[in-house]
Amino acid sequence: FLFTIRSLSLKILKQKFNLYPKSISSYLSIFLSHTVADPIRTGSIMSQTRIHSGLLIEPDGGKLVELFVDESQRDLKRKEALNFPKIKLTKIDVEWVHVLSEGWASPLKGFMRESEFLQTLHFNSIRLEDGSVVNMSVPIVLAIDDSQKNQIDGSSSVALVVDGNNPIAILTDIEIYKHNKEERIARTWGTTSPGLPYVDEAITHSGNWLIGGDLKVIEPVKYHDGLDSFRLSPSELRDEFTRRNADAVFAFQLRNPVHNGHALLMTDTRRRLLEMGYKNPVLLLHPLGGYTKEDDVPLHWRLKQHEKVLEDGVLDPETTVLSIFPSPMHYAGPTEVQWHAKARINAGANFYIVGRDPAGMSHPLEKRDLYDADHGKKVLSMAPGLERLNILPFKVAAYDKTKNGMAFFDPSRPQDFIFISGTKMRTLAKTKESPPDGFMCPGGWKVLVEYYDSLDQAENGGVSETVPA
Amino acid sequence: FLFTIRSLSLKILKQKFNLYPKSISSYLSIFLSHTVADPIRTGSIMSQTRIHSGLLIEPDGGKLVELFVDESQRDLKRKEALNFPKIKLTKIDVEWVHVLSEGWASPLKGFMRESEFLQTLHFNSIRLEDGSVVNMSVPIVLAIDDSQKNQIDGSSSVALVVDGNNPIAILTDIEIYKHNKEERIARTWGTTSPGLPYVDEAITHSGNWLIGGDLKVIEPVKYHDGLDSFRLSPSELRDEFTRRNADAVFAFQLRNPVHNGHALLMTDTRRRLLEMGYKNPVLLLHPLGGYTKEDDVPLHWRLKQHEKVLEDGVLDPETTVLSIFPSPMHYAGPTEVQWHAKARINAGANFYIVGRDPAGMSHPLEKRDLYDADHGKKVLSMAPGLERLNILPFKVAAYDKTKNGMAFFDPSRPQDFIFISGTKMRTLAKTKESPPDGFMCPGGWKVLVEYYDSLDQAENGGVSETVPA
Repeated sequence: FLFTIRSLSLKILKQKFNLYPKSISSYLSIFLSHTVADPIRTGSIMSQTRIHSGLLIEPDGGKLVELFVDESQRDLKRKEALNFPKIKLTKIDVEWVHVLSEGWASPLKGFMRESEFLQTLHFNSIRLEDGSVVNMSVPIVLAIDDSQKNQIDGSSSVALVVDGNNPIAILTDIEIYKHNKEERIARTWGTTSPGLPYVDEAITHSGNWLIGGDLKVIEPVKYHDGLDSFRLSPSELRDEFTRRNADAVFAFQLRNPVHNGHALLMTDTRRRLLEMGYKNPVLLLHPLGGYTKEDDVPLHWRLKQHEKVLEDGVLDPETTVLSIFPSPMHYAGPTEVQWHAKARINAGANFYIVGRDPAGMSHPLEKRDLYDADHGKKVLSMAPGLERLNILPFKVAAYDKTKNGMAFFDPSRPQDFIFISGTKMRTLAKTKESPPDGFMCPGGWKVLVEYYDSLDQAENGGVSETVPA
Repeated sequence: FLFTIRSLSLKILKQKFNLYPKSISSYLSIFLSHTVADPIRTGSIMSQTRIHSGLLIEPDGGKLVELFVDESQRDLKRKEALNFPKIKLTKIDVEWVHVLSEGWASPLKGFMRESEFLQTLHFNSIRLEDGSVVNMSVPIVLAIDDSQKNQIDGSSSVALVVDGNNPIAILTDIEIYKHNKEERIARTWGTTSPGLPYVDEAITHSGNWLIGGDLKVIEPVKYHDGLDSFRLSPSELRDEFTRRNADAVFAFQLRNPVHNGHALLMTDTRRRLLEMGYKNPVLLLHPLGGYTKEDDVPLHWRLKQHEKVLEDGVLDPETTVLSIFPSPMHYAGPTEVQWHAKARINAGANFYIVGRDPAGMSHPLEKRDLYDADHGKKVLSMAPGLERLNILPFKVAAYDKTKNGMAFFDPSRPQDFIFISGTKMRTLAKTKESPPDGFMCPGGWKVLVEYYDSLDQAENGGVSETVPA
């Protein structure tokens, strides 16, 4: 029934707001779903989505969860932690501690207990004590092996350590339950194929038990990679949006360099939000900063590129906040895009731009995409707990030869457009060829070329691939 | 957070209703969750769940969906259907047509379109136009292959045929979308292991497309196997419960013979409901009648056995309605148990007895159960759209040597109990040994022995395995 309603209300929206000429096919159209467009999302929920000047969208559960030990209590807690059984964290575990500690997963108060894990796997959402539902689509869990489990024995708390004996956090009121990896993988990715990056990295060799509990972080997670200042917490982002008097925040999740097509989409979104009556829509340009697969461009290069894009004025620094989203990447398509969206609600975003095949990748074994390219935005638009978020489907941009620049694809004159895929872009940068004029700002392109240059040198036994930012 | 609340309210319930002695561990206890026991399920929902005399629980979506063409219109529709492209149904497809036509899956109006399919896979629930949520955990879909898709071409309706050209139903306003079998299987079963019975039978060799639409059934599905009179529709069941003045209906889903442990549980449930203040709780004894795997006891033998149990007075015919649930079996554990429960709401049941490892089976390849035995009842208790249903966890019954009969297991004297597994029961019946006195009523046991006898004879080239009931 939903689609009938959706397309009906889309028509109403078009007539009502006259947002775009009728010649643009609905396939390409950006539509402001839910609050405005969707009659099934009316009622009590609507009042929460209206943005009043200076008032940001509420975090999930009504309150932003922060799980830091008071600075005055740190030494005490650290000493206390020394008496607890220790769990050594992997790099990805630490990223989840970071994510949880700052409240990106609000209202989660720590690594999932079994009831939260099961709800995540089966319902992509969790019911709170008051009966309301928040979205939660990827398990945020901590795996331990048999020997660690035995070591914990009857203790109700454990210390989470990184190097040697240094506890960065404690987990209290713990619950240990079975880690059925096959079921977790199947329900999260919709496949159990070997070759899923996060699975290979973080699940396959992890322990057969999961440990949930309340997290208390003694020492805020820092990476000392020159980028910590870009890692604003949801609370800091909310402060920044308030300081800028944002009355709408639209988030753009990415893990790739920004080309002018992206930039066009972002500036166009701001224009539309202004047309809708918002006075100061602010863009949260929010590259993912946790674990990514090997052939993705590393974070510090991406950041460098994004900074150039702002320096070159392709995006307006006045209305853009560039920050790092600390989550690791699952590459779990429609399941993961919900997490990406939900976390941004907690950071104050009430509009979310969703791309074609978000968080998707090729099937590791078969010659096809793992997910249907449209499922991400469809699932996102129907996801429980995300009713308050306005989903903005990506408009397809391509290189318009008649304009010598990126433009929204016009299906009435396909011959004028060139699609430059990620693969094509990488090939050009690797071979030091220039992309068509206007594809990316020169400063940003130079960073990309430098990156692939550094890779070549590393491969030839030259300098290290890792370059401090 | 949920479990804390649940166990807290369980304590309150125990004190309030004094339902059972404190010595029984909570693991074994039957608790009346949700409406009564669960503070998170209060509010507007509660008013719907209270049972007034003569008033049964509302069907999902508020109205029982029945998809039959008016008898006066049948010939007309049959003629109309002859002009539509034809889709030949498998036996399992026909079972789903049956299920849909009678409203077991209310408010579904036909085979799922993509939006319903995606919500089922990702959220185990579907949001209705009014914003409310109904549970829907297994995809009810119709697969077609490339040639069928090509044949349909631009038609907006298709005829569903069984034998030759005889159309039993039409599907209108159709939508055709991709059938990603791997993703469907992974998200429904939590595994993609070969050897899943329903997958092998109904998915692996099915087409690469799914066709959804509004179903109109020209001819009600009948099986002419002597059991059609047992196949009461939800509407007929509701009439029967009303006729009996039921003020509570408790459903027991099964696909195995009834032994005295089951019977004890059912009579004990009625006793508890009477203690709670209900005047006439009626049992819906509801064997699954659709597709089951080969080594399950066939439906007509089970029915024969269930009838004996009623004849022998082990269950009270006055307060028991024996009927067939026409759904095929998925063996999909925690995902499927939601479907089993949801369908019974539509038939008027407001209490549902959930067993250990419901709809579970052994992993087809590994030496373990496919699902954690407790996940079924946990997932069921948290499932969206089932808040109105009272979940009654199974109490473990075993053969009590001190009583020479089935009794609830008492963990304080484990040495007195013998657990008789399904495998053990089958072995006894096959070898014509008698089970301990009081395990099953003699009439019921005789049916089982006859069944295995008929199998032997069939194997030895004797009479056919199929025996008319």
